[in-house]
Amino acid sequence: MTHPAYDELVRHWARLHRFFHLQAIAHWDRAAMMPAKGGEARAQAMAEMDGLLHRLRTEPRLAGLLAAAADEPLDDLAQANLREMRREWTRANSIPEALVEAKSLATSRCERGWELQRPAGDWAGFLENFRDVLRLAREEARHLADASGLAPYDALMDQFEPEITSREVDRVFGDLQSWLPRLVDAVRSKQSDEPVPTLHGPFETTKQRALSLDVMRLLGFDFEAGRLDESAHPFSGGVPEDTRLTTRYRDDDFVRSLMGTIHETGHARYEQNLPRDWLGQPVAHARSMGVHESQSLSFEMQLGRSRAFVERLAPLVARHFGAQPGLEAGELHCLLTRVRPDFIRVEADELTYPAHVILRYGIEKRLIEGEVEAEDIPALWDEGMARLLGVDTRGNFSNGCMQDVHWSAGLFGYFPCYTLGAMYAAQWFAALRRERPHVDREIASGELAPVFDWLRENIWSQGSRWTTAELVSRASGEPLNPLHFRRHLETRYVGLTPA
Amino acid sequence: MTHPAYDELVRHWARLHRFFHLQAIAHWDRAAMMPAKGGEARAQAMAEMDGLLHRLRTEPRLAGLLAAAADEPLDDLAQANLREMRREWTRANSIPEALVEAKSLATSRCERGWELQRPAGDWAGFLENFRDVLRLAREEARHLADASGLAPYDALMDQFEPEITSREVDRVFGDLQSWLPRLVDAVRSKQSDEPVPTLHGPFETTKQRALSLDVMRLLGFDFEAGRLDESAHPFSGGVPEDTRLTTRYRDDDFVRSLMGTIHETGHARYEQNLPRDWLGQPVAHARSMGVHESQSLSFEMQLGRSRAFVERLAPLVARHFGAQPGLEAGELHCLLTRVRPDFIRVEADELTYPAHVILRYGIEKRLIEGEVEAEDIPALWDEGMARLLGVDTRGNFSNGCMQDVHWSAGLFGYFPCYTLGAMYAAQWFAALRRERPHVDREIASGELAPVFDWLRENIWSQGSRWTTAELVSRASGEPLNPLHFRRHLETRYVGLTPA
Repeated sequence: MTHPAYDELVRHWARLHRFFHLQAIAHWDRAAMMPAKGGEARAQAMAEMDGLLHRLRTEPRLAGLLAAAADEPLDDLAQANLREMRREWTRANSIPEALVEAKSLATSRCERGWELQRPAGDWAGFLENFRDVLRLAREEARHLADASGLAPYDALMDQFEPEITSREVDRVFGDLQSWLPRLVDAVRSKQSDEPVPTLHGPFETTKQRALSLDVMRLLGFDFEAGRLDESAHPFSGGVPEDTRLTTRYRDDDFVRSLMGTIHETGHARYEQNLPRDWLGQPVAHARSMGVHESQSLSFEMQLGRSRAFVERLAPLVARHFGAQPGLEAGELHCLLTRVRPDFIRVEADELTYPAHVILRYGIEKRLIEGEVEAEDIPALWDEGMARLLGVDTRGNFSNGCMQDVHWSAGLFGYFPCYTLGAMYAAQWFAALRRERPHVDREIASGELAPVFDWLRENIWSQGSRWTTAELVSRASGEPLNPLHFRRHLETRYVGLTPA
Repeated sequence: MTHPAYDELVRHWARLHRFFHLQAIAHWDRAAMMPAKGGEARAQAMAEMDGLLHRLRTEPRLAGLLAAAADEPLDDLAQANLREMRREWTRANSIPEALVEAKSLATSRCERGWELQRPAGDWAGFLENFRDVLRLAREEARHLADASGLAPYDALMDQFEPEITSREVDRVFGDLQSWLPRLVDAVRSKQSDEPVPTLHGPFETTKQRALSLDVMRLLGFDFEAGRLDESAHPFSGGVPEDTRLTTRYRDDDFVRSLMGTIHETGHARYEQNLPRDWLGQPVAHARSMGVHESQSLSFEMQLGRSRAFVERLAPLVARHFGAQPGLEAGELHCLLTRVRPDFIRVEADELTYPAHVILRYGIEKRLIEGEVEAEDIPALWDEGMARLLGVDTRGNFSNGCMQDVHWSAGLFGYFPCYTLGAMYAAQWFAALRRERPHVDREIASGELAPVFDWLRENIWSQGSRWTTAELVSRASGEPLNPLHFRRHLETRYVGLTPA
């Protein structure tokens, strides 16, 4: 079978991947390595590359090649690849190059500013940069909406979780809201009788790092194809061939960094196990950010906070910090499943986490749709945190509306992926337990391979071969169903059977 | 004055600088951070970027713009900038893009292989990759020679030290050879009576690193615009806005790493003090690699091994490793000026260093001219080391002909710059002492500013405004004169006055 147009597209996307590689490393470096004065030159360099990537994605000849390839005899994988190329091409063609470069510069500036403004709680300073980012994100949303026929916010979400709409997000978040607050109350009342384990620090950074590396090894991270470093906001970056994770350490608490590292390791294993033969092609990309978060949350929540896994974790913790009360498996599990509404999303327990997402989703949707302005964020934040979590954030910008990097980075429409990911993850584990009823016993006895094998076969190796909806159905036998998340939480937190 | 063609060239080179930034960071990352399995994808990404940079340097419209700009009313700086643009453009147009990409891939592969092959002494494995590098370097030399009318090796040297020829290198190296061997003998005989200070290790890496950082601070390195990390071969990379240095540590000896760091700090201060207003333009580049090495050697040799500076260094060393005999200023100076022919160039003393360079110069010139082949290197090396230094390197590839990264990286024609740099450095300090006779006393009392001020004014701030010959004359009042190097060595090693 000859398919010259398709082959030319494959070569073109391989080039894109190579340029993207340099951009991904520069992005990681900016967050993990770059000294302050390098920021302006880096912002300019990355904007130049964003412009180049955009020009490559919108080269006029691609229209003809995509049309010709559609008539060529392609196998299923190639057809999926072509579908993903077209998606990327369509999106890129909706946005003018000048906007791409302007947004790149504005988000670089805002993110760099945020790194200093957040610890200082300097909302006013942040606002100066952030107004530009918001203006450009709205413009981008308008272009994407015009081209796709989607609502502006939906058009942004579509970049991270293709084909989902806010109507669907409202449905599943609405489902959550109908039972989760009562569950939180029930668990808190149950836990109010239980002793609260406390940590006796300080926990040296070098020891925390050594523990993190051990746990990453346990979780199958390939250190010959990736690294762990530090940054202001933990993330997983790099390229599938070289995955770069970051975390941050606090002297008084090793649990946050540890669970954050487990979370990022889930992202990394997805990247490190995408189909190698197709790397560089869109079909080998991770399916979506919702599915990506389902991997990080499979690691952090489904696996990481299960009693079975904590039995494996506790000896490692003791090895690095010495035995201390509060660090045995029982106490550690108690700590990891303790439910307590608090300020910080990335450190939230499993039950209150969705409220953090619902708050951000509500605000960013209104920001993009022009219903509220950047200046309104603190008041909306305070009101939402009080209503959803009973937490008073007034005047606390650092641990309030400035805590996340996403908005500085122009990532509007990303937040819903976390809770979609939590639901997908629950659905994966429900399917895994159906197929392999003794898996929890296997995990407790140190056998993690069955979990990884299931994820590799059903998710990692599939790349972007299917749409998210198809992937979910193929892997779990049904469409996205919030019931699995509910059952998981009920079982683990007020449960009958161990999870 | 309007100069639209020149302005367009300035914009074009600013873009080149931004892409080069990403390449420079990827290069540093590859040596200092990248895990092994990332290598192939990185090689491809960097080759893609080398191809892009080459296309940008050879865009057909540049010919017309360069011609038009020559007729525009330009001030002196702009004219110097135009001269440097033309130099870069001429060179790029001599080489086909396919060769640029092939060389990029071959050197990436060879350099990555070398990182493992060198410690293993695997010459045969190295040879497999290196043959390709040599073949492509010869091809490059032929193209450059055809276009410039220079001899092939001279055409390669011209990239690193513009306008120098092997005739001139032969002249100054010949001068050296006429008196240096006798001086080495005289110094060795003088030192044979002196006790040899020994170091009492081990010296922990964390302490060595802390000492390095302190010394870099003393030397004025701006940590907000650069970093120090580790790599298999120490180097100074990154961009002027964000300078990345590397070193390597050995437990049994802190002096090598410390002096290496001082050397790289010299490079870094040059980069960090290039004219900021012109950054991104060719006129703001460092003048040449010979002048660059004159900065690293001003720091490592002229300043770093002077008795005056060692008085400042010793207390820092004691602070990090505790007081121990052999680490006081007198002993440390003795150690730093001890002359002993040995295997490793980068760890060589000031007097035997030129022999290492002369050896490499002779071999690489013959390699490029096709007089000898890659297979011949070990025998040539053994013969040269025995003849020039009386050192037996037979069978010792790791510390013999595989010790340097340059040839793996395709950097033929670079080595002469080290000894040219040593001569320039001696010439700078001779000029500085003429202008400021008490400068050694100032250094000993902790005043390093006069040294830095002189270098900033005469070298750093000048960028590529002048040709090397002009820069040398303007800074020191005369052309390159090996006599200063001789006087410096005689004064320091068999000397009458302290240096």
